Amino acid sequence: MERLEPISYRDGETALTGHLARPAGKPRAAIAVFPTIMNSTPAVEAKACVLAEAGYLAMICDFYGRQPDGPVAFEWADALRADTGAWRARLRAGLAALREIAPDLRQAAIGFCMGGQAVLELARDGAELALVTSFHGLLETKAPAAPGSVKARILVCHGDADPLVPREHVLRFWEEMDRAGADWHFHGYSGVKHGFTNPDPPSGNPVVDYDASADRQSWAAMGEMLAEVLDQAARA
Amino acid sequence: MERLEPISYRDGETALTGHLARPAGKPRAAIAVFPTIMNSTPAVEAKACVLAEAGYLAMICDFYGRQPDGPVAFEWADALRADTGAWRARLRAGLAALREIAPDLRQAAIGFCMGGQAVLELARDGAELALVTSFHGLLETKAPAAPGSVKARILVCHGDADPLVPREHVLRFWEEMDRAGADWHFHGYSGVKHGFTNPDPPSGNPVVDYDASADRQSWAAMGEMLAEVLDQAARA
Repeated sequence: MERLEPISYRDGETALTGHLARPAGKPRAAIAVFPTIMNSTPAVEAKACVLAEAGYLAMICDFYGRQPDGPVAFEWADALRADTGAWRARLRAGLAALREIAPDLRQAAIGFCMGGQAVLELARDGAELALVTSFHGLLETKAPAAPGSVKARILVCHGDADPLVPREHVLRFWEEMDRAGADWHFHGYSGVKHGFTNPDPPSGNPVVDYDASADRQSWAAMGEMLAEVLDQAARA
Repeated sequence: MERLEPISYRDGETALTGHLARPAGKPRAAIAVFPTIMNSTPAVEAKACVLAEAGYLAMICDFYGRQPDGPVAFEWADALRADTGAWRARLRAGLAALREIAPDLRQAAIGFCMGGQAVLELARDGAELALVTSFHGLLETKAPAAPGSVKARILVCHGDADPLVPREHVLRFWEEMDRAGADWHFHGYSGVKHGFTNPDPPSGNPVVDYDASADRQSWAAMGEMLAEVLDQAARA
């Protein structure tokens, strides 16, 4: 696994630290990676390294400016998300930091759990991203996307047995995105729970479980969508 | 494009003709390809050839034993599907013909429109298939799958704006498959109509339209699922 390089950036008064994985050659694109509610974790770092191995410049963004130690993360996350404007500003700061590192690369964003929710918030916010991919992300929002606001293509990879994201949320998300005129792909995996990309899930939490097939298929789908949007950009 | 080889087979009294595409080397698996309501067409033949180029032995199965000339296909299709037992027997005859050609290969099945419905009927019927993939297939059935009956893994690739398959059908399908205990992946594509894999859709039909992105992504997804189930079979 490549070493991750710490990147200091700010959101207003808050000092944040990204973690950057560089590919061997010229990057194909720059990918902002939004972690889970636990902020950067080994599982997310591994994904950033896989992106770098595939030729992408990948930076794990920082939600809190510090690493939570256990359940305090839930308090921090609630505080961060309480104000939609502040929450989106925190996310945009990550994109801006990545833009500074690689001003000429196309950007995309992916995220896991709370990070999946984060990339959808960025899409709703009109971020200039070629693609956002949510892995077991939350689909609900306090500020539904306005018509015409979404510029990013969207891929949602969802465990159909995720207790945090029941089918009502899925249907509401489709309706929201259709009203906004967004271009979305939705992948649902039967019997699959929250956190399905993490091969080392926290024990004793019945909400989450690893699923090797959903992990493999969702990752491949993201790669194929990335290839498509970058091919299109190259032709444009 | 490789030449397709005609294969004679029977379903009871009915003489049928499959069209076989052979890969250059040893086939990775045998894929039964179920065509649209129009039976074998250039669009479906092209897909069979792409499968052969990817290393699969692919046979387009025959619904009617003859080629329809225009809208009579709808009458023939209704007649064929009127009796679920007879309909499934017609589909099984295709698998049996392919089994005779390649007795030792793992089998999978894919289908387009009515062919997508067909492969789901085979899954409901308990066919020994590693994978079925439905491209813009109908999801409704007269004989919902019984608990424990489905052996095939299922991938459904669906245009969310398909007027023939509204969201109610999608939800009913998920519920049916969950009751059956099936292992399914569902991909939905926003704004995409029926027949999205056919780059040369019939003109003047507002129900169908080609979608290059959905075509590319659904085909890649099928390939990745095939690779997964065959990897698993190889390890077993």
